[in-house]
Amino acid sequence: MERVKIETKEKNYEGMLVESPDSKIILIKLDSGYNVGLKKDQIIKIEKISSKNKEKKEKKIEQEKGLKKIAIIATGGTIASKVDYETGGVLAVEKPEDLIEGFPELKKLVQFEVHVPFSIDSSQISSKEWKKLAKLCAELLNRNDIHGIIILHGTDALHYTSAALSFMLHELNKPVVLTFSQRSIDRGSSDAHLNLRCSCYMALSNIAEVMIVGHENENDLSCLAIRGTKARKMHSSKRNAFKAINDLPLTRIFPDGRVEILNNKHKQRHEGKVKVMPFFEDKVALIKFYPGAEPSIIKHLIKEKYKGIIIEALGMGQISVEGENSWLSIIKEAVDAGIFIGITSQTIYGRVDPFIYSPARKLEKAGAVFLEDMLSEAAFIKLSWLLGQELGFEVIKRKMLENISGEVNERLI
Amino acid sequence: MERVKIETKEKNYEGMLVESPDSKIILIKLDSGYNVGLKKDQIIKIEKISSKNKEKKEKKIEQEKGLKKIAIIATGGTIASKVDYETGGVLAVEKPEDLIEGFPELKKLVQFEVHVPFSIDSSQISSKEWKKLAKLCAELLNRNDIHGIIILHGTDALHYTSAALSFMLHELNKPVVLTFSQRSIDRGSSDAHLNLRCSCYMALSNIAEVMIVGHENENDLSCLAIRGTKARKMHSSKRNAFKAINDLPLTRIFPDGRVEILNNKHKQRHEGKVKVMPFFEDKVALIKFYPGAEPSIIKHLIKEKYKGIIIEALGMGQISVEGENSWLSIIKEAVDAGIFIGITSQTIYGRVDPFIYSPARKLEKAGAVFLEDMLSEAAFIKLSWLLGQELGFEVIKRKMLENISGEVNERLI
Repeated sequence: MERVKIETKEKNYEGMLVESPDSKIILIKLDSGYNVGLKKDQIIKIEKISSKNKEKKEKKIEQEKGLKKIAIIATGGTIASKVDYETGGVLAVEKPEDLIEGFPELKKLVQFEVHVPFSIDSSQISSKEWKKLAKLCAELLNRNDIHGIIILHGTDALHYTSAALSFMLHELNKPVVLTFSQRSIDRGSSDAHLNLRCSCYMALSNIAEVMIVGHENENDLSCLAIRGTKARKMHSSKRNAFKAINDLPLTRIFPDGRVEILNNKHKQRHEGKVKVMPFFEDKVALIKFYPGAEPSIIKHLIKEKYKGIIIEALGMGQISVEGENSWLSIIKEAVDAGIFIGITSQTIYGRVDPFIYSPARKLEKAGAVFLEDMLSEAAFIKLSWLLGQELGFEVIKRKMLENISGEVNERLI
Repeated sequence: MERVKIETKEKNYEGMLVESPDSKIILIKLDSGYNVGLKKDQIIKIEKISSKNKEKKEKKIEQEKGLKKIAIIATGGTIASKVDYETGGVLAVEKPEDLIEGFPELKKLVQFEVHVPFSIDSSQISSKEWKKLAKLCAELLNRNDIHGIIILHGTDALHYTSAALSFMLHELNKPVVLTFSQRSIDRGSSDAHLNLRCSCYMALSNIAEVMIVGHENENDLSCLAIRGTKARKMHSSKRNAFKAINDLPLTRIFPDGRVEILNNKHKQRHEGKVKVMPFFEDKVALIKFYPGAEPSIIKHLIKEKYKGIIIEALGMGQISVEGENSWLSIIKEAVDAGIFIGITSQTIYGRVDPFIYSPARKLEKAGAVFLEDMLSEAAFIKLSWLLGQELGFEVIKRKMLENISGEVNERLI
């Protein structure tokens, strides 16, 4: 970003030049954090302030005393990057100054330190990063001076990461907030400001859950905090892409700091220590059933020594159980070989149930476990985490149906 | 169903005994179609009217002249079945009388004939049934006396069937309405009545599209008609399970016959003949990517001689393209072997785009085709249908991105 001084007919401005959606308007971000759009024909003079001055200015940033401290973990993704307007490339956020530059209000809300365990496009994430992140979180959460954590993360696999942390951070003592943006923070239209601001409020709150915080709607009026095991990216590009599935959002957060509790079922901040359980079995598959799907895919997974399979079935948990493409015998074979088979629904919303239609009844009889209202993604992560602990089949079966981190809601009606 | 005469303190009733949600209430369906609940302690006498009388009564059904005729095709599922209250089993709808029994109003709306090409739980459906159904539809649609078709179908795979018919029925001349119910028609709380009523209005309308008609909300105030290639079951059990994805619903239908057009992009009824194109290649896979997914699944599909693969990727179309689990080289290998690889998004809503993030750019360069805002399920059906026609790779690539039956919306902004 370029720091500029702009002289207009009415007033003078100083701030960072940001990308403008309108070619007739020059957009700058003031030190207050607000953007101002100036009509080009009103501008008398634009003066570039040398980078040297800028460097100096950045180094002067001092954190305000008296504010509570949080840790910000930058892992990559749009929110943890800024466009380099000289090269057109993307730079990763690495130090407090990089965040303050795009979001100066941050230092009025919290004291913070920045950690960068890795920098990755979230679509490339895997269990290696999840374990590393969980360990870093536990270390920070067990420090007395840290009140909560904000993790900056890409959106694509964010709900997989939030589920992984939900299971790996046991007896969580403080809030762990994952947030994101769909447009980078130094763009005029970025959603990062509201998301970061609301994430700060949640990181200081009393709700000790792993949660995703982001826009509630397409406007900038509020964010929602969604439980890490019940969140899903439901739109490829909208700012309110994340939705709470089969669950109420935990809270609604307003930019003035008000927090509305929407879901009373949550854990409270406590004085104890969090315990890290960084277990993960990589030989777990998540597959989607479709009409006509051949059972040979299960044969392939048995041959490849998979230890668990989540099948995203139709409706309340149906797959083919008749005719030449029946999956029944191969499922039985897999279960007999000690492979855990879990059933979720590709409808996303709702619950699987083996007792309503006969194809599901047959599948359950063959040994597949129906995973209630669990999201396929959360079920995949939970099974990998349990199998990583080398528990017995019956223990895993029991634990898969037990609510560990908000991922299962018991059927009440 | 049992026909009974009930004497209460106030009045006498005659009708069919239906399942009651409350054990203190006897529920009967009157010949007018309305259900009446009678408190057991108010009932003086219940008299069973012999089946012989019932048989006779049923045979008396005569269709009203002057009404337009439609064809009703029963394929199975809850809406095409009724509970046998003597055995507790489920009976399939086979003749007009079976429908009139649960829904007497039907004969005031249309004249109709019933066809039963097969009776199947929709989760067991496959291309064999889709071809059979498409041929039957074409035959009926090309008869001058038939004004439209209603297909009674299970919900689980309904959107796969609606997509299949959307492609197989070329130059569609009349409405083809697929409808369903989540509770059978002889139950007090059934959603079948509104769905069937609204389906009749759409079958007589001027909109010549394959569409799914069902409840708009959880109340009984309106139905929506959703384009066959843009519909998806989004809840495992709710009556308003079907949603229009990346598209406006075609119409809103009220039980009094009013139809509101919500989407002007639709084809009109015409005098020409529909052409049936019952093609389907069964060697097409639909797979879901997840973080850590191993590329060996593609190797398996190559070995099993698959001709096409739809990958439900993350976000705007990302999968792993770095490190040991990179899918890039195997995708390139598959494309070089003539296998068509299409990319859709597991966010369901939104659009894939290879030009925003570098993992997707690499995937596109390896030869995968990004399928815009197409649903994974519609993409799977479309690819199977095109491959079934034995067209060349380049023709298939072009046609996959071309809008054939409302499945692709061009990016306009």
